[in-house]
Amino acid sequence: MTPAEKRELLHKDRERVWHPFTQMKDYAERDHLLIEKAEGLYLYDADGNRYYDTVSSWWVNVHGHGHPRIKQAIARQLEDTDHIMFSGFTHRPAIELADKLIEIAPPGLGKVFYSDNGSTAVEVALKMSFQYWQHVGRPGKTKFAFLEHSYHGDTLGAVSVGGVDLYHATFRPLLFDAYRVTAPRISRWENGSPTPEAAEHGVAEALEAVKRLFESSADEIAGFIIEPMVQAAGGILIHPAAYVAGVRELCTRYEVHLIADEVAVGFGRTGTMFACEHAGITPDLLILSKGLTAGIMPLAATLCTDRIYEAFYDDYETMKTFFHGHSFTGNPLACAVALESLRLFEEERVLEHVRTISEALRGQLPRFEPFRHLGNIRQLGMIAAFDLVQDTETGKAFPSSERRGYHVYLEALKEGLILRPLGDTIYYWLPHCTSEEQLHDIVDRTCAVLERLGYR
Amino acid sequence: MTPAEKRELLHKDRERVWHPFTQMKDYAERDHLLIEKAEGLYLYDADGNRYYDTVSSWWVNVHGHGHPRIKQAIARQLEDTDHIMFSGFTHRPAIELADKLIEIAPPGLGKVFYSDNGSTAVEVALKMSFQYWQHVGRPGKTKFAFLEHSYHGDTLGAVSVGGVDLYHATFRPLLFDAYRVTAPRISRWENGSPTPEAAEHGVAEALEAVKRLFESSADEIAGFIIEPMVQAAGGILIHPAAYVAGVRELCTRYEVHLIADEVAVGFGRTGTMFACEHAGITPDLLILSKGLTAGIMPLAATLCTDRIYEAFYDDYETMKTFFHGHSFTGNPLACAVALESLRLFEEERVLEHVRTISEALRGQLPRFEPFRHLGNIRQLGMIAAFDLVQDTETGKAFPSSERRGYHVYLEALKEGLILRPLGDTIYYWLPHCTSEEQLHDIVDRTCAVLERLGYR
Repeated sequence: MTPAEKRELLHKDRERVWHPFTQMKDYAERDHLLIEKAEGLYLYDADGNRYYDTVSSWWVNVHGHGHPRIKQAIARQLEDTDHIMFSGFTHRPAIELADKLIEIAPPGLGKVFYSDNGSTAVEVALKMSFQYWQHVGRPGKTKFAFLEHSYHGDTLGAVSVGGVDLYHATFRPLLFDAYRVTAPRISRWENGSPTPEAAEHGVAEALEAVKRLFESSADEIAGFIIEPMVQAAGGILIHPAAYVAGVRELCTRYEVHLIADEVAVGFGRTGTMFACEHAGITPDLLILSKGLTAGIMPLAATLCTDRIYEAFYDDYETMKTFFHGHSFTGNPLACAVALESLRLFEEERVLEHVRTISEALRGQLPRFEPFRHLGNIRQLGMIAAFDLVQDTETGKAFPSSERRGYHVYLEALKEGLILRPLGDTIYYWLPHCTSEEQLHDIVDRTCAVLERLGYR
Repeated sequence: MTPAEKRELLHKDRERVWHPFTQMKDYAERDHLLIEKAEGLYLYDADGNRYYDTVSSWWVNVHGHGHPRIKQAIARQLEDTDHIMFSGFTHRPAIELADKLIEIAPPGLGKVFYSDNGSTAVEVALKMSFQYWQHVGRPGKTKFAFLEHSYHGDTLGAVSVGGVDLYHATFRPLLFDAYRVTAPRISRWENGSPTPEAAEHGVAEALEAVKRLFESSADEIAGFIIEPMVQAAGGILIHPAAYVAGVRELCTRYEVHLIADEVAVGFGRTGTMFACEHAGITPDLLILSKGLTAGIMPLAATLCTDRIYEAFYDDYETMKTFFHGHSFTGNPLACAVALESLRLFEEERVLEHVRTISEALRGQLPRFEPFRHLGNIRQLGMIAAFDLVQDTETGKAFPSSERRGYHVYLEALKEGLILRPLGDTIYYWLPHCTSEEQLHDIVDRTCAVLERLGYR
C-alpha cells in the first residue's frame, strides 16, 4: 500500500478500534503494527518488513499462514453451504469433524458439542458438568475448582475459574465462588525439563493440595478444570505428566469431573496430538479451539463422555435438555477448514515433523545458558520459555515497572521477530510448519536481541 | 449424495453430535434434517427437497445463501491474510469495518471492540460497563438490570441477565444477581401493530417499572440491557419505539448505561439499519453479531461511546486496561465478509427493498385473521409472528404438553417451509433478499399448514 494509505488506515485504527488486552495509551505515540500479508511462518507489514510469527498468532496457527489446501477447502465448502442453523438441522462438515475428533481424542469421549471460541467452549463444559450433577441426583455439586495461574477465557463463567489476578480480580462481584488450588511449582530445570527431584516434589505437593480439597469438599464440587501440561497465559508454566495423571486419579476417586482445557495446547503443540496423552488419561470433558481450525477462523468444541451425554437424554417433558447454543454453532466453513487441517496432519505427517522440530528446539536451549538473568529455561513440544529474573538462583523478579518483557518485544520487532512476552516471560509457541533452518534463524535473532539489551 | 452416504452421515450424527438447544431424544426415531446445499432463500436436503429458510438460519442470514460477492470477498481476503493476532497488530479489514460501523451506527458511538459471537459481545459490554464505573469513582455501581423474557446469550454472564426461565433457571447458583424489570405488555394488535391505547398503556406501565427501580437503586446499577424493539428468543415480543426512547431518557437521567443488544435485530431486520433508529436514540453500548457477517461466519462487535473508552485510557501503571480478548478477535476473513455485506447494503439498496417487502408482509397479515386460535398477530420489518392460543380474547395458552408449535414445525417441513416456533409462537424472520413472489408463496404454504392442522 502507499504511505498515504498506511497513514490513513493507522489514523482510523487509532480513531475507531479498541484492541484486546491492550492499554490503548501505549499506542498514543506508537502505531499498531499494520500487517498486510501473512504467508507460511511470516507476517509482512505495510512497509514490506518481514517478521517470524513465533507465537503462532496468539497460539492458533498450525500449518503456517495461507496454506493452499486450507484456501481450497473454504472455497469448496462455499459452493455447498455457507452457514445454516444447527438445531433441527445438520450437515456433512460438522458430522465428519465430530466423527474425526472422537477418533483422534483420548479414548472414552463420545460426543461433540460445538461453539465459537475457547471461552464459550469452557462455559459449555462448566454448564454441562453443573447440570449433569443436578440430573443424577447430586444437586449439591455446584462448585468448581481451578488452578492458581490458570486462564480459561474472558466470559464471566470462564473468568470465575481464572487464576490470573491481573485479568480477573476487577470483576470479582460478578463471578461465582470457586476453589483455587495450588499448581505444581517446579524449582529446577535441566535441558528444558524439570529435574527428577523438582518434578517429584512439585507434583507431590500439588496433588496433596487437590486431595485435601476433595477430602473436605468433593461433595460440593462438580468439576476441576485444568490446562493439562502447560498453563499458558499464566506464564507458560510446564507441568510434569505425573501431575495430570494424579489429578485424573483423584477426580475419579472423589467423583469430580476432570475438565481439560486444551484450547491452547491441543492439536500437536506439546508434541502429542492432545496434551492429555502425555499422561495417558482421558478427561470427562475436553475443550478444543485455536488450533482446531489450524488457526484460520473461530470454532470450538467441547467433547464429553457418553455418561455425561446420557444424563441429559430423556423425554422432553423431563426438562433435561441442555439449553445452550450460539447462532454459528457448527459453522460449515469452519468445520470444513478443521477437517482439512486434520487431513493435513495425516497426509503430511505433521506430528512426526513436530517431534523432529521439538527435539531441535530442545537442542537449541543451551544457547540461552550463557545469558545472565534467564531463569527456568523450559520446553515442551513446540513451546519453549524462560523468565527474565533479577536472580536466577532465588527467582527474584525485576520490578514490574521496568517492563522488561515489553522491551524485549519492541527490540525483537526490529530483528524481524514477533515475541509476545507474558510479563517478563519470553517464549516461543511455534507453528508446526517451522523448519530446522527457520528455528535456527529464530534463535539467532533472539540471542541478538538479548545481547543488545545487555543480558550477556 | 447416495442413500448409503446419507444413512452413514445420519448414523454418525446420532453417534457423535450433540446439537444445541436440543433434547436429543426427540431425534431417537427421527433424523436431523441433513442439508446438502444452501442457495438464496432455499436449503436443500440430502434427498433434494427444497425448503424456504424463513428464519434466516437462526436469524443470521441477510443476502441469501451462497451470494457470489461474499464468496469472492473471502477468496480475496485469503490471498492477503488469513488470521493474525489483534493485540499489538492490526489489519485493513478490521480497521475499515470499524470505521464503517461507526459511520452507520447511531451517532455518538466512537469505538469498536471485536469478539466472536453475541454472547461474548454481551460479556464485553457488561464488563466494560462494570469497569467503567470503577474507574470513574462510582465503585458501588456493580449490578445490572434486564427485562423479563430477555435473552442475551448462553455464557454465564449473559445468562445472568437472561429472563427466560426455561433456559436460565437451572444455572441460578452460578449467576450474578441482577434486577429483572417488567417488559412492555401489549394487549391488543391491529394490522400488525399495537393499537394506540395498548401501546400507550404498555409503555407507561413498563417505563414506570424502570423508573421505580432506578429511583431506589440506580446508585448500584451499572447498566440496563435491552433488546431494542423486539425481544426475540423470549417470544418475538415487539415493543413500541416510545418504550426504547423512554428507557434512554431514564438511563440518562439516572446515570445508568443503556446497553442495546442488537445481535438479532441489527442490520435491517426491523426495517431500519439498527433497531434503535426507530426511537431515534443512541445507546452507551451497542452489541452486534449475526447479520454483521450477513450470517456467513462468526463475528461480533461491541460499540461504545468515547466517554466509556476514555475512562480506560491511561498510563499502563494505573491498571485501567480492559483485559479481555479472544484469539480470533477481529478475524480478517470475517471482517472482510462483513465489509462486503455492508457494500451490498449500499450498492443493492437493500434497505429500500426491505421496506418494500416489509410493507408487503404487513399486507399479508389479514390472511391469518380467518384462522382460529391465532393471537397477537404482529409485525416489524422482516419479522412477523403470531401465537397459537386456546382463547385469543383472554390469551389463554394451550397446555404446553400439546407442543403445538412443534407440530407446526413438523408439518411445515412437509410443505417445504422452515418454521422454527418458539414454544407456541410461530414466526417469520425473513432474509432481506426475499422477493414479493417468494413472500406470497411462503404465506400460501403457511396457510396450508394451518389449514391441515385444523386451525381454520
